[in-house]
Parts: sequence; C-alpha cells; structure tokens
Amino acid sequence: MSEKSPERFQGRVSYHDSVEEMIKRIREDNMSNVFDRYAQQEKIRCTFCLQGVSCQLCSNGPCRISEKTGQEKGVCGIDPDAMAMRNFLLKNIMGAGTYSHHAYEAFRTLKATGEGKTPFKITDVNKLKFMCEKVGIDTNQDTNAMAIQLATLLEEQQHIDIEDKNIMVEAFAPKKRKELWKKLAIYPAGTVHEEQNCVASCLTNVDGSHVSLAMKALRLGIATIYNTQIGLEMVQDILFGTPTPHEVNMDLGIMDPDYVNIVFNGHQPWPGVATILKARTQEVQEKAKATGAKGLRIVGSIETGQELLQRFEVDDVFIGHMGNWLTIEPLLATGTVDVFAMEENCSPPAIDMYAEKYQVTLVAVSTIIDLPGVEHKIPYNPYEVDKMADKLIELGIENYKKRKERNIVPMVPKKIQKAIAGFSTEAVLGAIGNKLDPLVEVIAAGKIKGVVALANCSTLRNGPQDSMTINLTKELIKKDILVVAGGCGNHALEVAGLCTLEAANEMAGEGLKEVCNMLKIPPVLSFGTCTDTGRISMLVTALADHLDVDVSALPIAVTAPEWMEQKATIDGIFALAYGAYTHLSPTPFMTGAPKLVELLTDKAEDVTGGKIALGDNPADVANDIEAHILAKRQGLGLK
Amino acid sequence: MSEKSPERFQGRVSYHDSVEEMIKRIREDNMSNVFDRYAQQEKIRCTFCLQGVSCQLCSNGPCRISEKTGQEKGVCGIDPDAMAMRNFLLKNIMGAGTYSHHAYEAFRTLKATGEGKTPFKITDVNKLKFMCEKVGIDTNQDTNAMAIQLATLLEEQQHIDIEDKNIMVEAFAPKKRKELWKKLAIYPAGTVHEEQNCVASCLTNVDGSHVSLAMKALRLGIATIYNTQIGLEMVQDILFGTPTPHEVNMDLGIMDPDYVNIVFNGHQPWPGVATILKARTQEVQEKAKATGAKGLRIVGSIETGQELLQRFEVDDVFIGHMGNWLTIEPLLATGTVDVFAMEENCSPPAIDMYAEKYQVTLVAVSTIIDLPGVEHKIPYNPYEVDKMADKLIELGIENYKKRKERNIVPMVPKKIQKAIAGFSTEAVLGAIGNKLDPLVEVIAAGKIKGVVALANCSTLRNGPQDSMTINLTKELIKKDILVVAGGCGNHALEVAGLCTLEAANEMAGEGLKEVCNMLKIPPVLSFGTCTDTGRISMLVTALADHLDVDVSALPIAVTAPEWMEQKATIDGIFALAYGAYTHLSPTPFMTGAPKLVELLTDKAEDVTGGKIALGDNPADVANDIEAHILAKRQGLGLK
Repeated sequence: MSEKSPERFQGRVSYHDSVEEMIKRIREDNMSNVFDRYAQQEKIRCTFCLQGVSCQLCSNGPCRISEKTGQEKGVCGIDPDAMAMRNFLLKNIMGAGTYSHHAYEAFRTLKATGEGKTPFKITDVNKLKFMCEKVGIDTNQDTNAMAIQLATLLEEQQHIDIEDKNIMVEAFAPKKRKELWKKLAIYPAGTVHEEQNCVASCLTNVDGSHVSLAMKALRLGIATIYNTQIGLEMVQDILFGTPTPHEVNMDLGIMDPDYVNIVFNGHQPWPGVATILKARTQEVQEKAKATGAKGLRIVGSIETGQELLQRFEVDDVFIGHMGNWLTIEPLLATGTVDVFAMEENCSPPAIDMYAEKYQVTLVAVSTIIDLPGVEHKIPYNPYEVDKMADKLIELGIENYKKRKERNIVPMVPKKIQKAIAGFSTEAVLGAIGNKLDPLVEVIAAGKIKGVVALANCSTLRNGPQDSMTINLTKELIKKDILVVAGGCGNHALEVAGLCTLEAANEMAGEGLKEVCNMLKIPPVLSFGTCTDTGRISMLVTALADHLDVDVSALPIAVTAPEWMEQKATIDGIFALAYGAYTHLSPTPFMTGAPKLVELLTDKAEDVTGGKIALGDNPADVANDIEAHILAKRQGLGLK
Repeated sequence: MSEKSPERFQGRVSYHDSVEEMIKRIREDNMSNVFDRYAQQEKIRCTFCLQGVSCQLCSNGPCRISEKTGQEKGVCGIDPDAMAMRNFLLKNIMGAGTYSHHAYEAFRTLKATGEGKTPFKITDVNKLKFMCEKVGIDTNQDTNAMAIQLATLLEEQQHIDIEDKNIMVEAFAPKKRKELWKKLAIYPAGTVHEEQNCVASCLTNVDGSHVSLAMKALRLGIATIYNTQIGLEMVQDILFGTPTPHEVNMDLGIMDPDYVNIVFNGHQPWPGVATILKARTQEVQEKAKATGAKGLRIVGSIETGQELLQRFEVDDVFIGHMGNWLTIEPLLATGTVDVFAMEENCSPPAIDMYAEKYQVTLVAVSTIIDLPGVEHKIPYNPYEVDKMADKLIELGIENYKKRKERNIVPMVPKKIQKAIAGFSTEAVLGAIGNKLDPLVEVIAAGKIKGVVALANCSTLRNGPQDSMTINLTKELIKKDILVVAGGCGNHALEVAGLCTLEAANEMAGEGLKEVCNMLKIPPVLSFGTCTDTGRISMLVTALADHLDVDVSALPIAVTAPEWMEQKATIDGIFALAYGAYTHLSPTPFMTGAPKLVELLTDKAEDVTGGKIALGDNPADVANDIEAHILAKRQGLGLK
C-alpha cells in the first residue's frame, strides 16, 4: 500500500475507495446522504455554536455571547467560559449515560447467564475469577453463583454514593492517581451518582463556574472508566472470551448478495452473539437455503461489529466487519442487507429511505434506539435474547425473499481488507512473555519511542471520512510510536490496512518495524471499541505501577483525531484526569471561552499532569505528540 | 389593590414595585443585571434556536434546519421534529435529574435523622405512618426504624429497573391512568433508570424518532412525579411537618439592615431549617447582638424560602420570603444581606459583583452549585448540617461587621405583603371536613367552575417579571376558577397579594368569592414549590378516584405561564402524561418542528387525553382554559 497524503482527498468524501464507489450509486439514485448533507450544512454553520457560546437551555434565552456587540453574558449572567463548559459537560454526561446503559445491559446479561437463562455461558472462567479477586468476591464457589455475585456488585458500583467504598477505582486505578484524585476532590462515586450530580449542576442558574464544571467533568470521567467501562468490558470477556489476536476481514467487499445478510449495528454484542450461535446451526442455514439463498450470514457493523470481531473468528457465518458509521449508508446502498439490527451507537436517522429503496428491514433491538420507518422493535432483554435471534433470522429470510422479488440490483465494491483484531492487555502481555519488562526494554532502548492510544469516532469536519485518523496514525508509526486503537477510528485503521503485519514493514519507522516483526504484531493494535478506553488504561496503569511512576510521567499520549459524538468526549475527559496529553480534533465547541481553553490546554497540566492538545493537521499533531513523548522520555532519563 | 392591565407595564421590568424601586439603584450603581442583559440578548436572538432546529451535539455540526435553503436535515440525517424533541427531552432529563438529586438528599436526610444523627426529628409521625402504609412497610415498629426503612425504600424506588415493582406508581397514581400507561408502554421504571435510558437515547444517531422521544419524555415525567417528587415532599413533611395554612410576610420590605441577615436560596430546606433552629437560641441572638446588630434573622428566598414558608411560622427569627429568582439581584442590592446561602435552584451566575459591591458573603451549600467568586463551599451532608449552621451563622456575623465597617448604605423598599401559605392536600381536605364531597358539590354547583394548577418559574420573555403569571391568574379567578399554585410563579402571586382573603373579595368571581369566604381561603392556594406538582396531583388523583373517572375527564387544567428552566418542562410533560390540558408559555423551542407541534398540541389528546396548549396573552389563555373546563363539565353532565 502506498503512502497517501491528505491532498489526495480533494473532491473525495472518504479515505476508503469502497465508500467512494458507493457514493456514486447513492448520488445516481438521488438519495439523501451524510456527505452531501454535510456540504449543505457547511453553508449555514453558526459561529456562536461552533465557539460554544450559544445557550438554549431556558426561556430567557436563547442567548449568545458577543463581547463586540455588548452581549458579554447570558441573560442569567453566565459568562462564556461557564456557558461553553456547561455545554461540554452536558455532552460528557450523555457519553457517560450511554456507557452506563451499556454496562447495565452487560451486568444483567451476566446475571441472567449465571441463572442459566440465556443462550450464553461463562466462557472465560479465569477472567471471572480475576475480576472476583480484584473486587473481593470469594472465588471458592460455583462459577454461576460467582457470576451472579459479580454482576450484582458491578451494577451496585455504578450507583454507589460518595460515602460508599469505590471498589472499582480502588482495584483498577493507578496508585499515584488515587492519591492525586483525592487531593483534587475528583475521586468519584459511582457513574450514575456522578451523572445525577452533574446533570443537576447544569441546570440554568446552578453551576456557573467553568472551573467547578470542569472538575465535575473530570470526576465523571474517572467514574465512567472505572465504575462502568472496565466492568462492562471484563463482563463481555467473561461471557464471550477475552480478545486474542486473529485475522479478520474488513470493508464492504465482504458482502455477498446471494446470502441472507443480517447486520448488527451499534455497540452491544448480545443479540449479535445469540444470532451467530443460532446461525451456525444447520437448521438455520437450511432454512435460508430453502428460499434460494446460499445461506445466512452475520455481518458486524461499527462498534457492535468490533465487539464481535474481538472475540469471534471470522468464518462462513460471521463474515467480518464493514467499517465505521459513515459507511452505513453506503453499506445499505449495496442492496445486500436483509436485516439492519440497531442498538446504542450510530444508526443515522434518515436511513428509512435506504431501507425502502434497497429493501432492508430495519429492526430496533434496544430500548434506546428508534428511527422514522422502523416497524420492528424488539428491545433487548437477556431473558428473551434467544427468541430475539429467532425473530431476526425470520425477518432476514423474509426480507431476502422480498429483495429477490423486487430484483434489487446489488452493487458490491470488490475490496476485502485483512486486519489483525483482538488485542487486549492479556494478549499484549502474552506476546511478550507475560511480564512488562520486555515492553519497558524496547521503550527504554528507543525502539518504540512511546505509545499513543487512539480512541475515536469518524467525522467529516476534518475532511474525507477517516483521513485525519489514518494520516495521523501513519505519521505516528513512522516516528516509531506504537498506536493502540479503539472505537470507530480503529475500524478506519483496520479498513485502511494499518492493522497488518505488512503495514509494519511498509509504514513503520525502523525501531517499531523491528519490534513488530519480532513479536509478529501490527504497528496499530486493534484494542476494540471506544468502550475499551478502560481496557487500554489497564495496560498503561500496569506500566505506571510497574515502574512506580505516575501516568503523567510516561512517554504516552492519547488522541481522538476524529471525535464525533458524546462518548468520545467523556473518554477524552477521562484521559485528562488520568494525566495524559490528550489530543482532540475537531476542536471542541469552546473557542469563544478563552479562560476555559486556557484551563484545559494549559493550566490543567499543573493540576492533573495532563492537558488537552488541539490541532487538525496530521503532521503537526504527530510532531506535537512526538515532542511530548520525547520530553517524558527525558524526564525518565531515557534518551 | 386595583386591577392592573398588561399595558401598565410598558417600560417596567417587573410587576412588583419593590423590584422597580431597586432596579433604579442597580442601574445607578452601574451593575450588570438580568433585566438589562435580557434587553441586550433580544437584539441577537437566534431564530433557529428559538424554533428548536439548531443542534450542537456532535462534531459534524453544529447543524441548523432550513428547508428554504436546502438544509432539510442535520448532517446525520435527523429531521426537524426529532431534533427539536431531542433538544426538549434533554431539558426534561435535566429537570428530572435535579428532582432526583433533591430526593436523594431528602431520603438520606430522613435516614440520618432516623439514626439520630441530624438536628432534625420526625415531626409528622402520622405522615410517616401514612407513607409506610401506602408502600407496605410495617407501622408497628419504632418510629426511627420506620423512617430508616422508608428512606431506603424510597431511594431504591428512584433506581428500580423495568422488571421491579413500581411501588410508588402503584400507590399514588390514578387507577385508570395506570392501565392507560401500561397500554401505551409508558408505565415507568424508577426515575434514575428512565433518565439513563433517555440520556442514552439522545446521543447522536441513536433515537431519531420524535414520536419515540416524546413517549420517553412522558415515561420520564411519570417516574419523576411518582418515584421522586411525591416521596421527597412527603419526606419533607415527615421531617418538618405537613403544611397547614398560615399568614406569612412577603417582598423585599421584610429586610432590616440592622440585623445579621442570612438568606437561604435554592430549593432544599436542610441547612435553612438547621439554621432557623440554631438562630432561635438565645446564644446565637446574643452573639449577633454583641456585634452591634439587633439580632440574627433568616430570610427565605425562592423555592427554599417557600419550602420553609410552607412549614414554619414567620416570627422574629424567620421573617418571611423575598420573592422569586428575578428578585435576587434586587435583594442583594438592598445592602442588607450578610450570607446568601445557595443550593439547587436559581442563583444567577453573575452575582459576584453584587457580593463585592454590597458586601454579601456567598456560600455554596450543595455539591451541585458554584459561581465565580464563591469562596465558601460547605456542601450539604445530613451528618454535618448542624456544623453547617454554625458556620453560616459565623459567616453572617463576620459579614455584618464588614458591612458596617464599609458603611454599605442600605436601601429597602417599604412594602411587606401578607399572604396565606401552607396549603396541602391534607389542609384542603381539613378545610372541607376531611371528605371530598363538599369540593365536588361546589364544583357541581358551578360555584367553582374548575381548578387550575399553576406550576411555574418567572421569565422575562412574556414581558415584565411575573406579569403573565399574575394577569392570567387574575383572569382565571375572575372566571370562578380556583388556582392552586406551586413554584416561583406561586411566590409571584404571593408577593402580588393574590394569596389573601381580600383577594377573593376584590378579584374573584361571585361563585369563587362565596366559596373562599365560606372556607376562609384565598382564591389562590399556595401549594409550595414546583416540586409540589406531585402534591397537587395527589389532590387531583383523589378527586378522580373518588368520582371514578379518569383525570382527563375532570374540569381541571395546568398552566406554566412563565416557565423558565428545566424542572418546569418535566412538570409540564408529566401533566401531559397525566391527561391534563397543559398550557405552556413561552412557547417551547419547537416551532420549527411542525409534526412535533401537532403531536403535542393535538394528536396527544387521542393518546393521553391531555395536550399542550400555547398562547402568551393572559385573557386569551384564560378563555381557552375556561372553554376546556366547560367542555369537561359538560362531559360530566354538569352545567
């Protein structure tokens, strides 16, 4: 694969050729699409909103801040800094709330599984025991009883009050951080408690201090990672297996129109796993074949796809992953999708016209999602997930018949991209002999200068889909910086071919190439989804505690080069609380709030040791990150 | 008091003369103030925001909908209806979140009191027993043990899952409503659970259906009233006594500069009550006098003031209530306030300059509040509330000394307005012989045409402070419609003299006047704060169940003629779910969403029996409400 420069994308909508191919059909078919809507919206974008100084909360407003024309404050008296931070905290709350909803579903699924009432089982008993040991649950008991006890404790830990012991933070946070967080009064209660406190703080005329609001965001970020994310990802490991590296297939080329294709889109793996289990039975395949199809297949889409990809081998039934959310409309336009099952993340709201045009059955499989034109709603419930799978298969087969009857002409881009998915702390440690010294040694020797965690979405604000994510990552690996990726940005890198052993030889610097070849790993380690921010932090925490230094002293950084939605912002805020140099692009809506920008991008470093870094040019951002990493190396006495 | 027409207010900022008097000083002193900031903001108000079709949630945006110039949808594909409803649901969540925070504080206060660890006691044992009986707790046990058990159950009821029994809805909702809510799938889980579900639904690309989002708002509204509000108000009754009618003093004339004045502003009564208890001791009064003051006084402000007013007699120590939130800057400008203790509601964020100019010590007494310039933060904790009171008294005395040293010249409007506060379902029933028949009879006879519940804030969007609230209420009582009031709108009516026996003779229609004189009640019954929406509903529910009809059949209506913030919007949404004709003014930000407006103002009536009514002219709104009430009377066979 040859080097691509950002310039190459002029006139393009996406880094990915498959999406470029599909946008032609979409436009020919006169379909409203995200790329063209973006171009339309760019014409009337509000600068007040972009700068974070527009407020629509109360009926004295809407207000805007414009010092030039005399509106220095909102009607209530709020200043631009507090207005922008409150707007931002509200987004953080939405992200935290969504993670806590995901965790709620995970914990009740574990409980129902322990009760023997789901089609799932305790797949990774060691992980279950590890978690129980970490949180103080007796491991000398029946596996299912242990699972139920853990599920109960983890759900309680989401709700704990400030007076309760935060078992999860105590068990998983870096020891030097815990001290600092207590000192700063940002050592949190449970995520749900912090959400409630934050949401009440955001009311009109309640918290009008940008500093106080920012500190609340940090607290919420810490709770989100420890009291929600880590538990939920570990529970998914317990249920479906801890990720281990394996080769998978990516991009739209995986679609075959002659199969019944059921796509799982969102973030939560439950109905997807249940349907994979069913679809692997001869009975279901025969049923599909009876309609003239070659069989029935399961396709992973966005974060749900990645959750599946991390833990399930790609085979004749589970065929791989299509890409990230901006690829959804192109996917539906291939005319190959029978069921698009949606929960949690990123089902673009106007896909009803795609469903109509290309004969797709849209199904909402969670209480939280709905769209115009969705006829089938089967909200997830662990006790019913087996029946959900039956229903989805039935709907898929029915739709396949209609798709054939209507002679929907398929159009499938040819490309299938290989990627290695399935990294985890355990997998990384496994690759280096189950101790951290080899990693420390390659870093100390400068073969790997440092590690960057990329947790991300995909946006059009920085140019064509995924261009910023991919170009920045290329710059980083060229500089011998290992990239650990999660989220929709991770799918971008997988589709772009950066999660391969070949990428190390073609794109990485000499030191990183050597390490990759030695360990047989790509220069970009696919750590899963944005929810795996917690998982990534576990590796970093292990490193910090191993070296007995604080996180802020490590040669690491975090980047979200195409953050789009609200889960990304809470991940970013956690990274700041965690003491990391945290690059965010596009610039969050706060440039109209000078004191807030100063607080987050500068003063924060004196408080948490971390700071927010801005910048939208991949080369410049990579240079800034490298400079930070080199400074930290120097601080540790490394050359 | 003579009739005042809206025309009278041209050039005014407030209905209240005391505020008019103070605004002169504020302007002479060159102080930024809410009234002048309002005038500034009116110059640059965004029409997209006003219409609800502006979205700043994700980095593909900010987006605006303008069909004229080709932006029919947001970048993601969201349509104007879902965009506006999502914006509105986010506000509902903020309101629900704040109520649930208040309830959390109430329940842990009850628990700590049961444990003997607060200065409070179980004041209304009958109310405690009533609640325990309603929720199935054994009343044959020690009072304190009962209190602890109730507190635990009520907090659990905020968090319950969809699978758990909703004890509070079962105990308190009208029986015909429960059936309907189940049929509509809006019978809720606990408030916290519904908040989490709603917040996750509002994420970019998650719930893109305005119908689905609206149904979630209804569910959240029901949870808020039953699983949060009713419990918290009943707990406040248990702790501090169920409200009974008594005469109180209102308006800025209550302030005396020669006392140490501690003002409690917000919504939660805890530190206020603890400080009243202390301030009534000779020791504290002597301490204040030792500095040259005449003594130490407690002043109620906005909703905290009303919570105190409902349950405490006005005397030499607790001297009454200053008004609603738009009166805060005028209050501080009197130069008589020593401590302004703030929690929860409505501390305007720019009052630091008032604190500086007029020598006021600002104290945050809750985790949720902060402002620029607040030096003292003593977040509420029931176990520490006694010490909090000591500290507040100490700060008050210190500030008094500084105020005198700095020779702050006081300026206090003369007027003290009497009002009758302290109504409750029990008080109303008590006044009519503890059975509902007398109320039914006066309604059936047409002496009272119907009842309007007014739950409200205060905004400048409809003209001078409180003009819409007061003028609408005058129109209603003239039409023999009894008004039951809660919230900042209630303080408006109290300050304006409508909560007096005289008001019945001067302003009410003949039928209502007769009933008021017979029962010795004002034509406007002060039911407390916006949190008392639940309490008001208890009276209406009793009436509906007594007559064995659904709420939607009753000759009642709800109005929020000056809603301002987010708790008001969730109260309004509850009223819709409850089956009430619900007038909202100003018009919520949704006029750019035609299908949503149609859903809420028209189609909803076929679903819940309630609907949202709009309108900003007091006479027109009163006519619309009267027409609705007359139609419902006809439906019940009344003339």
